[in-house]
Amino acid sequence: MEKENKDKYYISIPKEEFSEWYTEVIKKADIVDTRYPVKGMNIWKPYGLKALKLMLSIMEELLEKTGHEEVYFPLLIPERIFEKERDFLEGFQGEAYIVTHAGDKKLNEKLYVRPTSETVMYEMFKLWIQSKSDLPLKVFQTVNVFRYETKQTRPLLRVREIIKFKEAHTAHKSREDAKKQVEEAIEVYSKFFKKLKLPYLLLKTPEWDTFPGAEYNYDFISMMPDGKAIELGSVINLGDKFARAFDIKYFDGEKYSYVYQTCYGISERTLGALISIHGDDRGIVFPSSIAPIQVVIIPVRNDEELINKANEVKESLGGLRVKIDDRDKRIGEKFYYWEMKGVPVKIEIGKREIKEGVVVIGRRDKKEKIKVDESKVKEKVMGILEDYDKSLEKRGEENLIKRIERLEEVKRFEEEERGLKEAMWCGEKECALSLEEKINIPVIGYKEKKVKGRCLHCGNQGETYLLYFGRTY
Amino acid sequence: MEKENKDKYYISIPKEEFSEWYTEVIKKADIVDTRYPVKGMNIWKPYGLKALKLMLSIMEELLEKTGHEEVYFPLLIPERIFEKERDFLEGFQGEAYIVTHAGDKKLNEKLYVRPTSETVMYEMFKLWIQSKSDLPLKVFQTVNVFRYETKQTRPLLRVREIIKFKEAHTAHKSREDAKKQVEEAIEVYSKFFKKLKLPYLLLKTPEWDTFPGAEYNYDFISMMPDGKAIELGSVINLGDKFARAFDIKYFDGEKYSYVYQTCYGISERTLGALISIHGDDRGIVFPSSIAPIQVVIIPVRNDEELINKANEVKESLGGLRVKIDDRDKRIGEKFYYWEMKGVPVKIEIGKREIKEGVVVIGRRDKKEKIKVDESKVKEKVMGILEDYDKSLEKRGEENLIKRIERLEEVKRFEEEERGLKEAMWCGEKECALSLEEKINIPVIGYKEKKVKGRCLHCGNQGETYLLYFGRTY
Repeated sequence: MEKENKDKYYISIPKEEFSEWYTEVIKKADIVDTRYPVKGMNIWKPYGLKALKLMLSIMEELLEKTGHEEVYFPLLIPERIFEKERDFLEGFQGEAYIVTHAGDKKLNEKLYVRPTSETVMYEMFKLWIQSKSDLPLKVFQTVNVFRYETKQTRPLLRVREIIKFKEAHTAHKSREDAKKQVEEAIEVYSKFFKKLKLPYLLLKTPEWDTFPGAEYNYDFISMMPDGKAIELGSVINLGDKFARAFDIKYFDGEKYSYVYQTCYGISERTLGALISIHGDDRGIVFPSSIAPIQVVIIPVRNDEELINKANEVKESLGGLRVKIDDRDKRIGEKFYYWEMKGVPVKIEIGKREIKEGVVVIGRRDKKEKIKVDESKVKEKVMGILEDYDKSLEKRGEENLIKRIERLEEVKRFEEEERGLKEAMWCGEKECALSLEEKINIPVIGYKEKKVKGRCLHCGNQGETYLLYFGRTY
Repeated sequence: MEKENKDKYYISIPKEEFSEWYTEVIKKADIVDTRYPVKGMNIWKPYGLKALKLMLSIMEELLEKTGHEEVYFPLLIPERIFEKERDFLEGFQGEAYIVTHAGDKKLNEKLYVRPTSETVMYEMFKLWIQSKSDLPLKVFQTVNVFRYETKQTRPLLRVREIIKFKEAHTAHKSREDAKKQVEEAIEVYSKFFKKLKLPYLLLKTPEWDTFPGAEYNYDFISMMPDGKAIELGSVINLGDKFARAFDIKYFDGEKYSYVYQTCYGISERTLGALISIHGDDRGIVFPSSIAPIQVVIIPVRNDEELINKANEVKESLGGLRVKIDDRDKRIGEKFYYWEMKGVPVKIEIGKREIKEGVVVIGRRDKKEKIKVDESKVKEKVMGILEDYDKSLEKRGEENLIKRIERLEEVKRFEEEERGLKEAMWCGEKECALSLEEKINIPVIGYKEKKVKGRCLHCGNQGETYLLYFGRTY
């Protein structure tokens, strides 16, 4: 019995074997059920969906505070609209699901199942934007989007249905305003990842790799336990390219001018990265901001006195997400279970503790347990959560930095070698492409802030960028 | 100028001309934009989406309180799964959008764009349910669903993409438990419509009209201003039909038994009905529960003193959704605008009022304005909101009852005649169908509670049902 239960909740694979560990954690912790009969599409279970919604609500608040309003655009996009921006079309067409029929009837026009919403949105922006008083326009939506992935899929990280793509789209009077908006978006995203305690590099994508239809874009890049880079979010300056394709103009009192646009988005992929990056051999480690349960209270036996006390303690923790586990299970199993689920704080209540007027508090990231006077539980728990979040953040950052290798000479890496590589770079496309080929790892972007140095490829000295290479998810 | 602005925000069509009134209100109040280039699919604008989300959050809370957990099932459903329950398939197949291609590639199997999720869910329920400890299973999801409507579409009321279908699905050990669940669902829905101040009849659908694959179902029916009936929500007892089709069984310690299931759902259609039913010649009238803005504060001029005072008053209204309108517009235009948007309470602030230490409070449903001492604003506003909601509810109920016609003799109604008709009925199918034909209006359901009377068709005396006829949305 004990054995069987233990197997059910105990993570049996060390995190070092990341791929198998991830699969097991996602499954045992009830994030998604991967048994849906279409590849790359998963069923979200209550616990996973709660964490995802908590995560998205942080973003929503940040977007609303900065004046973004929520909208919803339809899922199905007529072919003639999807085709309006040619670069864009080429970027997405091959991987779009296409509706051709309704019942037995063949449709007059194919409908694309949105891989992304730029085209439909901008078709309407043309109608919404008339004069400068309509600008800036700042909207966002949270929608399901679809990509026919041909690569190997992986829950949350690479899927065919992204269930919650939270994308923002803005339009502005001038190039300058669009640039400022990109800065605002970067600030919003930085705050967001900070709340999640996720370490990242903010990299600009080299122009030759830029998002289809864009002028330039930034990516928030983190590193997975297997050393691969992962894009957590993108911020894109679209310039006036879409405005020209969709004829989005405003009247400034004298003449009509094209608007300048930006867009940026995140999705459940961030949750997948978070589970991967913060997790340990025992399972998930949620930062308190998105932990569906922040504190679990476990009476060591299920008798009335202990359960009453548990309820009292829960009462005293008002404002936190607290659960009492009074299931008819062995205590060891309960410990395994809530550790695996990533609950930050655990409170044990036993007969002896009640007599002493204390409870025993443990935290997910450390083995230590402390006895705390009943009257101070809330204060103590708040302190622990703060410290716990800080540790997560610190550990994450140290881990990322430690695993970035600065290349002092050009050397070749084999396919299986992972981890981010960093090199000084003069800014010339040729140098980057040549380095990419020689070291055998793709360029993922560069830090915009220059540093004094010497280009690893051409050897030119002076102001250089830090260029990053990494195999990606 | 005044004329032009007035046209922009003033509802120019009396509610009597319901169809045109509805179109104008939905547009001017920024609920949806109907200019999306696919028939029956609309773009939700921020104000409409806020109201919708507030409405859905009421339902969410009710579902969570009664132990329902949120999940998410994929949008695309493989043909082989969709085909498993034959009655069901026939009910939906003709109106389903079908994905046949991804990019240029023809898919091996057609994917249905979910018209509803029973089939995919129950495919997984088979895996989730093993023993009686897995029961009851109570889940819900909020998703976009699709129907290729061939009838005339209408924003919110009859659309091809329902953007927020909130559907609950449950599984139980016994027929008796499923029946109890139906009762719980009816209670949840009753509370929900009560919060929205929507009048309704709870009608059981005659067996010959029951939802595909179901044992029996109830509908919450209301009446639109044009006298047509509208289904606000359905509660369905599926019996063990799907359990048999999908082989969903549990082990009760001795043998395997099929589960018994229920499902129930609502959507943005309820918001469309609410706007229609509560609205008046000046536009929307939102109940306070879902008004995106509950109180608008309008300084009669935009000077600093007035705006400061407006901010003070806003502060004092903590906990309510309050907006200060300090736009550079004429006051008359602001009044029109917020009336049209359905804001329950309006507070005017002028120089004279500041001197007197008062504000002027008006409410959306009455012409009267009152002066209220600054220190009592919150208390007074709360009282007004309570009374306002009660009036909405009372008016709605009276209106519904007034417009139900009890038929004392069989008479024929022409196509254009509207309004619900009510007749005593012995319960025999033949009598109902015969009445339906003779009076020329479809049966929509009957009240389960019997009353003493005489069947309008066969004349048999005794315990009869009240049977309802109505043309529907």
